[in-house]
Amino acid sequence: MDLSGAEFRRAGYALVDWVAAHREGMAELPVRPSVEPGSIRAALPAALPDAPVADVGAALTSLLDDVVVPGSLLWQHPGFFGYFPAQASLLSLLGDIASGGIGSQGMLWSTAPAGTEIEQVLVDGFATALGLGEAFTFAGGGGGSLQDSASSAALVALLAALHRSSPAWQETGIEGTERVYVTAETHSSLAKAVRVAGLGSRALRIVPFSPGTRVMDADALAEHMSADRAAGLRPVLVCPTVGTTGVGAIDPVRAICGVAQGVWVHVDAAWAGVASLCPEFRYVLDGAELADSVCTDAHKWLGTAFDASFLWVRDGRALPAALSITPEYLRNAATDSGAVVDYRDWQVPLGRRMRALKLWAVVHGTGLDGLREQIRAHVALTTSLATRIEAEPGFALAAPPSLALVCLHLTGPDGSPDDAATRAALEAVNADGDSFVTHTTVDGRYAIRVAVGALGTGPEHVDRLWQALRAARD
Amino acid sequence: MDLSGAEFRRAGYALVDWVAAHREGMAELPVRPSVEPGSIRAALPAALPDAPVADVGAALTSLLDDVVVPGSLLWQHPGFFGYFPAQASLLSLLGDIASGGIGSQGMLWSTAPAGTEIEQVLVDGFATALGLGEAFTFAGGGGGSLQDSASSAALVALLAALHRSSPAWQETGIEGTERVYVTAETHSSLAKAVRVAGLGSRALRIVPFSPGTRVMDADALAEHMSADRAAGLRPVLVCPTVGTTGVGAIDPVRAICGVAQGVWVHVDAAWAGVASLCPEFRYVLDGAELADSVCTDAHKWLGTAFDASFLWVRDGRALPAALSITPEYLRNAATDSGAVVDYRDWQVPLGRRMRALKLWAVVHGTGLDGLREQIRAHVALTTSLATRIEAEPGFALAAPPSLALVCLHLTGPDGSPDDAATRAALEAVNADGDSFVTHTTVDGRYAIRVAVGALGTGPEHVDRLWQALRAARD
Repeated sequence: MDLSGAEFRRAGYALVDWVAAHREGMAELPVRPSVEPGSIRAALPAALPDAPVADVGAALTSLLDDVVVPGSLLWQHPGFFGYFPAQASLLSLLGDIASGGIGSQGMLWSTAPAGTEIEQVLVDGFATALGLGEAFTFAGGGGGSLQDSASSAALVALLAALHRSSPAWQETGIEGTERVYVTAETHSSLAKAVRVAGLGSRALRIVPFSPGTRVMDADALAEHMSADRAAGLRPVLVCPTVGTTGVGAIDPVRAICGVAQGVWVHVDAAWAGVASLCPEFRYVLDGAELADSVCTDAHKWLGTAFDASFLWVRDGRALPAALSITPEYLRNAATDSGAVVDYRDWQVPLGRRMRALKLWAVVHGTGLDGLREQIRAHVALTTSLATRIEAEPGFALAAPPSLALVCLHLTGPDGSPDDAATRAALEAVNADGDSFVTHTTVDGRYAIRVAVGALGTGPEHVDRLWQALRAARD
Repeated sequence: MDLSGAEFRRAGYALVDWVAAHREGMAELPVRPSVEPGSIRAALPAALPDAPVADVGAALTSLLDDVVVPGSLLWQHPGFFGYFPAQASLLSLLGDIASGGIGSQGMLWSTAPAGTEIEQVLVDGFATALGLGEAFTFAGGGGGSLQDSASSAALVALLAALHRSSPAWQETGIEGTERVYVTAETHSSLAKAVRVAGLGSRALRIVPFSPGTRVMDADALAEHMSADRAAGLRPVLVCPTVGTTGVGAIDPVRAICGVAQGVWVHVDAAWAGVASLCPEFRYVLDGAELADSVCTDAHKWLGTAFDASFLWVRDGRALPAALSITPEYLRNAATDSGAVVDYRDWQVPLGRRMRALKLWAVVHGTGLDGLREQIRAHVALTTSLATRIEAEPGFALAAPPSLALVCLHLTGPDGSPDDAATRAALEAVNADGDSFVTHTTVDGRYAIRVAVGALGTGPEHVDRLWQALRAARD
């Protein structure tokens, strides 16, 4: 039922050409689509075809041109400043083509030895390059993996924490006394992990910020944990964030590890952690070497197409101990020997693609120095924008800029945030198709987030956004 | 930091050529690698490069030739009969290239309108083509999604079941009285879902088989649930399997739905469900139209490279109701309108690729008739093999063949299963590199599983396996 090699060459070249042309011409397209809910469904045939189309490559590129591109928010567009970047480099696409071509299933070492070991080498190499220290490498007794997302990484870290806190968890489940510590800036994936793991929202403790900041107050954390323990509750996980989604706040990981007293510390550095590749930004992961697990995404600001989220753990046995269940049909000599890593035991799904190849292509295609250069360039662009915001009448920073993220308000005559004007400015900016930004709230006030980090974003794109923001004010 | 369009064209063509040549020549390669644990890690440089390599396309194809192929179990090989098939068709690879090229993040409708709606159209179309009925389509108030795996599908179905059974679950979590009903043939992903969701293994009820079979006894299920209710316990989920991993057993879904009495029924048809595309195999999903959720994998026997697992639910609101958490930075007008599907609320991860494109390419490239043809061909090959096993001295079926799966024993002089001989035969077959099979146990006796379903498997490959099995006996 499949294409022949010759047919695949022809259609594959056509797809490669289409992707190249799409990326080359993307800056001329509107970053944001104008489509109404349901319009795309209504335009597509409801029934699936019984017979094949004549030329599936041509049919697919037509679908891309006619339906997908006009109906998509273009995350790879140089004017994309929304959410966080989701860099899908062409380099990583080479690795993904290879992964699909091999088509292996990496649930066990024995079902994908090369995929497993290439991944091990890469996660060890990145642990070193990020300065996490040997404890997080396989050589040092820890280990890493490429998860599908930081959400899943947080979930499995929580499961390992529950297991370490009480091995009976595997048999009797949640007791109801478990508690998890976050801040109001922590990503919603932690609340979701707590829900999925059956703890219920009552288990989530929102630790206050240090005064005048949006970062976790380590003293308050100590007090919360102490009070909970006194009340018969059981702290199981603390999650400091390195670069929160709202404003890019960086929790004091070192201080938090200092008060955690054996409670599992999971560092969610999904967006910002990769900046630690640069010596001058290594401070973002300060103290992370003391944590139990650390996550940062290769699929945000490290060029690698979704999905590829690093998760390192200090104890390389922790995830298998928590998650492994081995039915007869998965038993094999390599697993029984204890000499291999079976990545199914590091995640919820059983199957997995060979994610390592796309990351391999990125780091070999651009080098660590290439990754460092783009991180520096994006931070410089953001710093420059923040300087202009601060100097400009009618604008104010909503929070200190953090690496390549800056949040801003439009302000009223008295200099205080003007929610209506800020919201109107966001809508005006997003309406013209050159730039795309999203929002958050800071201390209850509406703020525009500018996350610099699309692969092609340069000074001219930030300038254009800034002109649009100023025009919206005027 | 990325490739230019011209560079991507050159390297992309090279990767396409590599994949085409790999698939064309694969039958000549050993299906199973001979590598020792750790040998691949030891052979790769530990440190990541600071500078880029000169030609990343060439470096990547060298890695594939020198490390990946010799170090991989070749799941796409026509002699692959292990586990279940994991068809990664070249058709689906076309769609995956497109997905990577677009590089969108499908967490919300508003972040990927086209990706969301193309997925909705496809899952509705397949619900119809499989005969599941309108109740599982968006038009009928239900809906579907493409999950990463049947494991994740089972987990989110369980979470929806927990929420429906007790909405307080979101706040107070697991009570400890919840119970989940499976059989000894149910896939380990259900035990894992129960563990992940915090129920603990005590929540798992193993319902006996009907006498002389390996399928769930619906009467025994009714008795178990009734006894549990009388003991103050709370049945939340029943999971019948359509095509168990061990022997391909098909639980009586209709009878199970008849006794479930409002308890969520999740049909795990991961491998076998797609057979229902053929009218003569529609019986496999008989009764599934009465269930609450149904899963079947496009990435096993439907040509679509991992990951792409269908999950349909009868109540299209059930998963968002159970899973949605909306921080300020994800709020948007389309979501607030209630007129769209935000697929992040159907899964644990926040982000998602545009999985729909690879499935679109498969069904348009081969047509439903092409999918039906290969299912029929694989079933016919299996039936023929089973006939030969039954007729052959020294062999016996370990269970009735099911679609494209047959399990066998080697037998001793008295005709009873000979575990040592069966194990030795598996090792002999797998040693020569032509064929690869895996094992299970049936009533405690070691059995070889032959799962026919690699894309290129034809009569000659089954013949060769059969010759190898007979040679191992002799």
